[in-house]
Parts: sequence; C-alpha cells; structure tokens
Amino acid sequence: MTTAPTDLSPLAVTQLIETLAHFSGPGPGVTRLVYDEAWCGAQLWLATQARARGLVDTRDSAGNLYLHDPRRPPGPIFLSGSHLDTVREGGALDGAYGALAGMLLAAALRGATPVPVVGLVTCEEEGSRFPSAFLGARAITGRVAPGESESLRDETGASWREALMAAAALGCAAPGGVEKGATAPQPVIGFLELHIEQGPVLESEGLELGIVERIAGFRRARIRLHGEARHAGTTPMRMRRDALAAAAEIALAVERIAREHGEPSVATVGAMHATPGLYNVVAGSCEMRLDLRHVRADALGRLAYAIEATAREIALRRNVTFAWDLVSRQEPIAMDAGFVETAVALATAQGVKHRAMASGAGHDAMIFAAAGVPSLMLFVPSQGGISHHPDELTAPKQLAAGIEFARTLLPALTERVAGRRA
Amino acid sequence: MTTAPTDLSPLAVTQLIETLAHFSGPGPGVTRLVYDEAWCGAQLWLATQARARGLVDTRDSAGNLYLHDPRRPPGPIFLSGSHLDTVREGGALDGAYGALAGMLLAAALRGATPVPVVGLVTCEEEGSRFPSAFLGARAITGRVAPGESESLRDETGASWREALMAAAALGCAAPGGVEKGATAPQPVIGFLELHIEQGPVLESEGLELGIVERIAGFRRARIRLHGEARHAGTTPMRMRRDALAAAAEIALAVERIAREHGEPSVATVGAMHATPGLYNVVAGSCEMRLDLRHVRADALGRLAYAIEATAREIALRRNVTFAWDLVSRQEPIAMDAGFVETAVALATAQGVKHRAMASGAGHDAMIFAAAGVPSLMLFVPSQGGISHHPDELTAPKQLAAGIEFARTLLPALTERVAGRRA
Repeated sequence: MTTAPTDLSPLAVTQLIETLAHFSGPGPGVTRLVYDEAWCGAQLWLATQARARGLVDTRDSAGNLYLHDPRRPPGPIFLSGSHLDTVREGGALDGAYGALAGMLLAAALRGATPVPVVGLVTCEEEGSRFPSAFLGARAITGRVAPGESESLRDETGASWREALMAAAALGCAAPGGVEKGATAPQPVIGFLELHIEQGPVLESEGLELGIVERIAGFRRARIRLHGEARHAGTTPMRMRRDALAAAAEIALAVERIAREHGEPSVATVGAMHATPGLYNVVAGSCEMRLDLRHVRADALGRLAYAIEATAREIALRRNVTFAWDLVSRQEPIAMDAGFVETAVALATAQGVKHRAMASGAGHDAMIFAAAGVPSLMLFVPSQGGISHHPDELTAPKQLAAGIEFARTLLPALTERVAGRRA
Repeated sequence: MTTAPTDLSPLAVTQLIETLAHFSGPGPGVTRLVYDEAWCGAQLWLATQARARGLVDTRDSAGNLYLHDPRRPPGPIFLSGSHLDTVREGGALDGAYGALAGMLLAAALRGATPVPVVGLVTCEEEGSRFPSAFLGARAITGRVAPGESESLRDETGASWREALMAAAALGCAAPGGVEKGATAPQPVIGFLELHIEQGPVLESEGLELGIVERIAGFRRARIRLHGEARHAGTTPMRMRRDALAAAAEIALAVERIAREHGEPSVATVGAMHATPGLYNVVAGSCEMRLDLRHVRADALGRLAYAIEATAREIALRRNVTFAWDLVSRQEPIAMDAGFVETAVALATAQGVKHRAMASGAGHDAMIFAAAGVPSLMLFVPSQGGISHHPDELTAPKQLAAGIEFARTLLPALTERVAGRRA
C-alpha cells in the first residue's frame, strides 16, 4: 500500500474517489446499482482499503458494510458513512464521498474516542434498482416490513431476497434475512454522514461547510386531468376542455405558491404527459408529476393543501376532471440538536466558513434519526449545485476539509452520546 | 345488387358507410393506411358499387380512383369526392362520407349536367402512413416534387414509389409514375367535397349544413427550451431555470393570445415533453408542439408573430434558451366565391338551415383550390364535434340531406364552370 493509513490530504482523498468511480456499469458518469458487479466491486475494494488501514470488514444480511477496529469492545458503536449505490449515470461523489469518509474516519480515530467510530456503507439509498429507497439503513434500524424482501422487485423481476443471495455469493452481503429485526451488529448510538450539498447554496454564499439541522420531508403526487380530445383546427377556443392548458395553469400556480410560502418551500412539476400528444389535437388528458418539500411537517402540510386546493379550482373552472394521487411521502426530520450545536461551535472556533442549513434531499441520516439514533449530516459545496449527473464536482480541498472537520468533531460527538448513556 | 342505383335515402347511405367501415386494420374504430389491404379493399369495393350503378372505374398512377359515365365525352370534368385513408383508429365518416357521396352523385347525375360529374377517391389525405398529406390531390394537380416518390418513406422505410407498386399489384393503382405532371385523366374544372364538420359549430347552432368559404392555413412549430436540470429538493425556487415552468407559461400565453385575436383564431399546445421528466428533478429542457390556424394569411401571420414574440420574452425573462422550429405550414385558401354564393342561395331557397363558415381543418379541396380549380366544400354536423376518433358520428338523416343538397347544387355549379369556359 502506498496510501498512508491516516492520509486525509486533498490528493489522497481525490485519488480514492477517482478509483471508486472506476467501479461503474457502462454509460457516462457512474452507475452502480445495489448488489450488481460494479457495486460489489466498489464495496469489496473499499474493504481492502480499510484493511490496509488496520480495520476489519464485516457485512450484515442486507449487504451493509461495517469497517471497525479489530480490538473493538462489545457495546455501542457510532456509525459514520453513506452509500455506494448511485442513480443511473450519476456522479462520483453522491454517497461515495461519505462512504469513503466513514472508512477514513474509522481508521484515523481508531482508539481515540469514548465510543468506537465504525465506518459504514449502506445499500440502496437511492432506490435506483428497487422501487424503494434507504433499504440498508432501514435494515440496520429494523424498519423492513414483513414480506418486503419478497415483494420488492427490480425491473427484471428479481426480488430483494434473490438479489441478496446473489450478492452474498459475490461476498458483499452476509447470508440471512432482513426481516428478523435490526441487522446492526452492535447497538448504534450515533450517526454522522458526510455528503455533497447537491444544491447551490454553499457555493453561492462562499461557504465551506453546511451543518444540517433538518432534512426536508416530501410529498409526491400524480395529478391526472381529463378534458376532451378535439381537433385543433375545428374546435373554437371557447369550446375547448384542454387538459394540457389546465396542467400548464396548475404548473404555474405550483411555482407561484411555493414562492409565496417562502424558503425553504420548494415545489416542482417535473413532467407533464399529454394524450394524444399531437400537434393537431387538443389534449384530452394530461398527467403531471409533482414534488413538494419542506423541512417542517406543518409547513409541508400547508404547502400541499394550498397547491391541491388551487389545482382543483383551476380544473373545476376549466371543466376538466381532476385526480390527485399521493404516490409517496416522507415526513421531515430534525438532526440531533446537541450535535448541531457542537458542530456549529467547533466550526466557529476553527474559523471554518459554515452555516446551519436544511437538506432538501433525503438521506440515510433521516432513517437513523427517525429510529431515534442521534444523527448529524455535514455538507461540502457542490460546484454549480450539480448532482445526480456525471458533472458532479467538489474541489479536492473542500472534500478533504470536510473529512478533517469531521475528524475533529467526532471525539466531541461520541463524548456527548457516551455522556448521555452514563 | 339490392341497392337501387339512385337510392340516396338515410338508410341506404348509412348501410354503405357501415359496410365501408368493415374495411379496417385491427384496433378500435377504422384504420385504413393508404395502399394497405384495408384501404385497397375499401377502394375496390366502392368501385363495385359504382359499377352496379352504371359507372366505370379507372385509376391513375397515384392510386386515385375515378368513377365516371362510360359514355363520357372527352373534355373537362367536374370531380366530387374525398379520401378513404384514415388516421389510425379513426372514425367511419372522415373522408369516407365524401368519397361515398362522390360515387352516389356521379351515378345520380349521369348525363344530367353540362360538364360530367366524376366521383373521386383520393389517397393519403391524412398523412397517416407517409409524413406528408394530400398526396393524391397533389398528384392529380401536378404538385409532386421531383424525387418525392423516392424520398418520401413510411415508418417501415418503404418509399411512396414502392408502396404504389404494391398497390398496383392489388389492382388499386395504375402503373406509371407520379412525377410526370398532373395524373388527372381529363382537365378538371371544378371540385366539390362533402365532409363532416369535425367541429362543434353546426351542432351547437342547430344547423344542418355548412357552406365552406375558406379553409384555414396553419403553422406548426416545435419550441425547444433549455434551462438547468437540478435537484428538486435542494435547488431554491429563486435559483431555478426550470424549462417546464417556462413551457407552462408559454402554453398559457398561447391560449390567451389566440382568444385575444378573436375567432376564428385557434392556437394549440398539444404536447409538452420535459427532460429528464422525473418527480425529483427540475426539468432541464422541454419541447412543445404548437399549432396555429387562421383563415386569412395576414391574420395567421399576426397570430404567429404575437405568439413567438411573447414566448421569446418569457424564455428570456426566465433565463431559459429558446428555439422556434417551423415544422410545417399551409397557407389559408378561399373556396370559389361564385360556388359559395350559388350554394348559399340554393340552401336559402330550399329552407335548409345553413351557414357560411370556415374550415379549421385542411382538406383535399385546398389543394384543388390552390391549383386554380374552382372548389367548394359542404359540411354536415359532427355530433359533439368529435372526429379522428371511433366515436365520430353524424345522424343518417343529416348524411343523406348533405348528399341530396349536393345533388341539387351540382347542376348549378357545373353550369357556372361550363359558362365560364364558354
């Protein structure tokens, strides 16, 4: 090994990120679907890096990887990590940065904290292979529904259980089920996740570090509108029931309402599919995809209510039928207030340009927090706010600075949770 | 034959329409793509009906069918007919009604007009098989571009020329090319087309007959917008360049401008395709399909200018790039003023509830008119304004009344053109 066990320099971190990015399926950027060859390869490679730094690697029956001190005492552990699965044709940093950081931090802090810091790689955070996200974090915290490993299937029809058996054969998951309670090998009493921001806020404000106070919840709705498909040349404007025009008016209202509700409200119409979708036919029906987010449950509820009520009124006025199907939802959640306070104080003391902020995207940390594990996230800037794209980029210095900050923060965080348990 | 040669009763007309509708490809409604088995079958069957009524059938090298008096004199002819090709999963009346009427009128008026009335079935009026419309009418009037029979290809890659050879083998086209000048067998000095309205105007005003004064021209544009694809959760509303939101604002402006310009202006956004089209990504780009129509060239130009200028301004304000590709256009055209006057006077004299009106849809009559052939269209009501759909419907009485009105009108129209030539 040429890499020194505790080298957290920008060059070392960047080289590790670049090597990880080579584990990818075909196409631009990085594609690692959970349990596939590229994902297992990346996970096995990270484990070899951990072993070279004096750690040992174990896996649970969901395919989560733990990187820990071989002389670890029994008892509670503090996890730090993220995921190696990506969206299709994603970037090199989303997930991978935090997973790598967890390994480096576990190695650097071996024996230095009152509660051991264990590196963690979760699985299927993105929901890119299976139509459900956070599978690994949910397994660790015992949040898998009865029968879910059989009912959850990927595009090829393979179940989660079958995919896990294949992963176990490759050596990147342990045998056993995911529905027998929490798969964590020891009690988890804290979680720290490093991640790129995936948004433009830190960069636009010239900051190095985001300390996440809350993770936004979301609601996703499919809106279906039905009017009348009519000839575009022979149907006077006044006699139309144009489903696409109704959808357009709703999309503009969504944008306006999100602005009126103020930051951090966001609402997005990401797609609008009109039928029949021709030049010369007034759209008879239209389906819209809507995503609403807020960091507080009450504000998210108000945002959703305002948008649904306005959309219904627009459809009614245009004599177009309206259906609102809630396709998924996630409640907002707060990070541990004590952790946030400790991180803000440390960043201030070190002169790190930082801000407390919300995460608009969902992360494994929300699963740990929801399960009662004191949790925190740290963000480093995303250039141009670009994410889920091959152009995802953070300066090497900022990647390394995030890990260095976490290295100085973790002794304090572990002390807090050790103290709470005392 | 059980059908009497001159039976123009509602029952007789309806039975013939229903039989024609049996010639169809699979799926709901009627699908006859030009030169395919269903289309050839319908054309050959109509020819047998014509022969049973004492007419003879000839075909030109484009596959247009002429139904005429076997004792026809050489010299000019007056055509009456329409098309048998349909949109995919269309109705039983669009085209077929006029084609059937032409056959019945040629039979009923044999020897009764100063210029012989010849029944006509054109081909590829719709542009459903080939990406170009009015092929038959364009061949008759010598409006086929050099090389077009080779360059024009259907979805399977077959050229117009190859399709015609296959049709000739089935007996529903004559051999020879379509690029050697007009394919009409004799000089054409008039054209009358009966058609369903395909819109709601006659029905909503309680009228039986529409006398078409003008056929609207259209412009079709593809608008392409490019903003930035960003994470829907992490990108504040104020930092977005949302291509779909820009498209929605443009779609609403299109609707508003068409209304402000007044009837018969119509403008339609029939489709809006956002990329990547997901719930959780702000649309990076969006493509819109726009169709604008008016019956006067100057008004159509003003409508197009107002919409393009407003759309550009919306895109500029939203910092989204804008491209406007004109994908097709057709200039508006007037029907023969003398024909319109004659028809209005006759309808008034007969107490037929009628109105002069514009056609928002394009028809073969616009090709004849553009080639200098005095032309007229008559509309019968469409129930609910439905067209290009299996539910297309006109009451049997109204179908028969339209043909009966044309039977009394054609002697006057042929006299007008015979007189002009004298």
